[in-house]
Amino acid sequence: MIALIAHGGAGNWRPGSDEDAVEGMRSAVEQGRAILRAGHSALDAVCATVVALEDNPIFNAGTGAVLNFDGFCELDASVMESKDQGFGAVSGLRRVKNPILVARKVMEETDHVMLTGEGALRFARVMGFGDHDPVTPARRDDWQDKRSRVEEGLGKHAMRTRRFLQQHPEYAGGTVGAVAIDAHGVLAAATSTGGVTLKMVGRVGDSPVPGAGNYASGHVAASATGTGEFVLRTLATRTISESVERGATLEEAVRAMLEQLGRQFDADVGFIAVDRAGHAVAAHRTPAMPHAFFEGESEVVARMRVG
Amino acid sequence: MIALIAHGGAGNWRPGSDEDAVEGMRSAVEQGRAILRAGHSALDAVCATVVALEDNPIFNAGTGAVLNFDGFCELDASVMESKDQGFGAVSGLRRVKNPILVARKVMEETDHVMLTGEGALRFARVMGFGDHDPVTPARRDDWQDKRSRVEEGLGKHAMRTRRFLQQHPEYAGGTVGAVAIDAHGVLAAATSTGGVTLKMVGRVGDSPVPGAGNYASGHVAASATGTGEFVLRTLATRTISESVERGATLEEAVRAMLEQLGRQFDADVGFIAVDRAGHAVAAHRTPAMPHAFFEGESEVVARMRVG
Repeated sequence: MIALIAHGGAGNWRPGSDEDAVEGMRSAVEQGRAILRAGHSALDAVCATVVALEDNPIFNAGTGAVLNFDGFCELDASVMESKDQGFGAVSGLRRVKNPILVARKVMEETDHVMLTGEGALRFARVMGFGDHDPVTPARRDDWQDKRSRVEEGLGKHAMRTRRFLQQHPEYAGGTVGAVAIDAHGVLAAATSTGGVTLKMVGRVGDSPVPGAGNYASGHVAASATGTGEFVLRTLATRTISESVERGATLEEAVRAMLEQLGRQFDADVGFIAVDRAGHAVAAHRTPAMPHAFFEGESEVVARMRVG
Repeated sequence: MIALIAHGGAGNWRPGSDEDAVEGMRSAVEQGRAILRAGHSALDAVCATVVALEDNPIFNAGTGAVLNFDGFCELDASVMESKDQGFGAVSGLRRVKNPILVARKVMEETDHVMLTGEGALRFARVMGFGDHDPVTPARRDDWQDKRSRVEEGLGKHAMRTRRFLQQHPEYAGGTVGAVAIDAHGVLAAATSTGGVTLKMVGRVGDSPVPGAGNYASGHVAASATGTGEFVLRTLATRTISESVERGATLEEAVRAMLEQLGRQFDADVGFIAVDRAGHAVAAHRTPAMPHAFFEGESEVVARMRVG
């Protein structure tokens, strides 16, 4: 049974942006569904879904990504396919419109799994990806405001910025991701992010790491959002896949991981996942996580939070 | 029971260098052992061991790392501790003497888990790590020779370089790593590498990724060497830890992972690991993997290959 689920990032969404976020999710998942219905691969579907979210400036990925401490965007993205455990990733990528498509090219065109920084950018240009500045005026204003407050509180360095910002209620992560199963039973996952606001230059989060922010095994495809450092240290999506392999339902596996991250780190995180039966699950520990999904012949359901 | 095991990289070692490699391993592990015997942490011990290997120019890490396609070193390294699943990593780091110590600082001094490229370099300098060119004349000559042959065979790009070089018998990976358990029962792992010769600029391998090239759980600490892309896609060290958690012996778990990587990818890889009983294991699918270890009160054993 074909199925696809996508998220637009766990965090504190501002009330006014709810409708736009839900509609953005719905539209992105409808694009993915059309691809799956036409018999194309789960990889094609999750990439198309993530491209739609990257191109939507309200989500923290591609255009509209958050700015790092220095005031520019460094983008992380990855794709994974259950077939042959194919994986491709970019980290610290600048000035590209769709990092998810560059990550796919890393998987398909190179001997490598992950390219970072300048090397990733050079590869993107060779592959024909043109120059594009993902910074939007809204993100620049937000950066200016947060950076001023951090400098008042911490001085001119970024090493402990996240802990400082977490004491402020408007702190929010955010990432986009899509996971799907196609008519051939192949699972795929795609995840793309600008990371966290005011991150240190060069910070790599969970999104480009297999088993952390993005994973597709023969059992489960999953994508994470939220505080990437905790997802990375616990290899959260891999843990979900293992639980299902050992007999847990997808819902139980996702819930257990969420509870562990809560207990261990009080982490602000969320997950989406599909299993090989085509069952889709979303869960989060944050006030909201816009997401949308369909299973088999169902309509697309889009909403701001679970429950 | 305290124990520590270290490796100097799975690959084809040149006959003449065997003695130096074995002595280098022995000396590095003796330094780690002294630290553990003095009651210090497993993290201190694996870092000291890896520093000794990074400073030894015959190993592919720190001074004497292999050169990327453009002819400079980009270093990957990470540390992990079972306690609280602490993890710190650097990737694509240039011109630093001991990347393993920068990785440790990422864990201890920042909100982040991994820093890459320019940002990692900037952080290193702020932390007081001075400028150091890890390129040695021997590595530069080797690079010159391989690059000429690649250009004859493939033209002036690096995307499929690895497959090309693998058809040549002298192709070799190589990485250094150390894993230990201390008197408090804490496990730690440290892994450091120059990656693969002629890698694309920006290539990140398995060494800085938790559960891939470097991992420490409550059950196992493990470090991988060899073709990093396969280790990364399979999350090999995490898989070893899971097997032990499910009841396999450490030896069985390492063997099973090695066999999977052989069957699935014919990958040239090797592992070292310790479990919480202080048992140390080494295994590899390559002609050699210099390694050294001790368990409890035993002397340090150093050798070129297992068996």
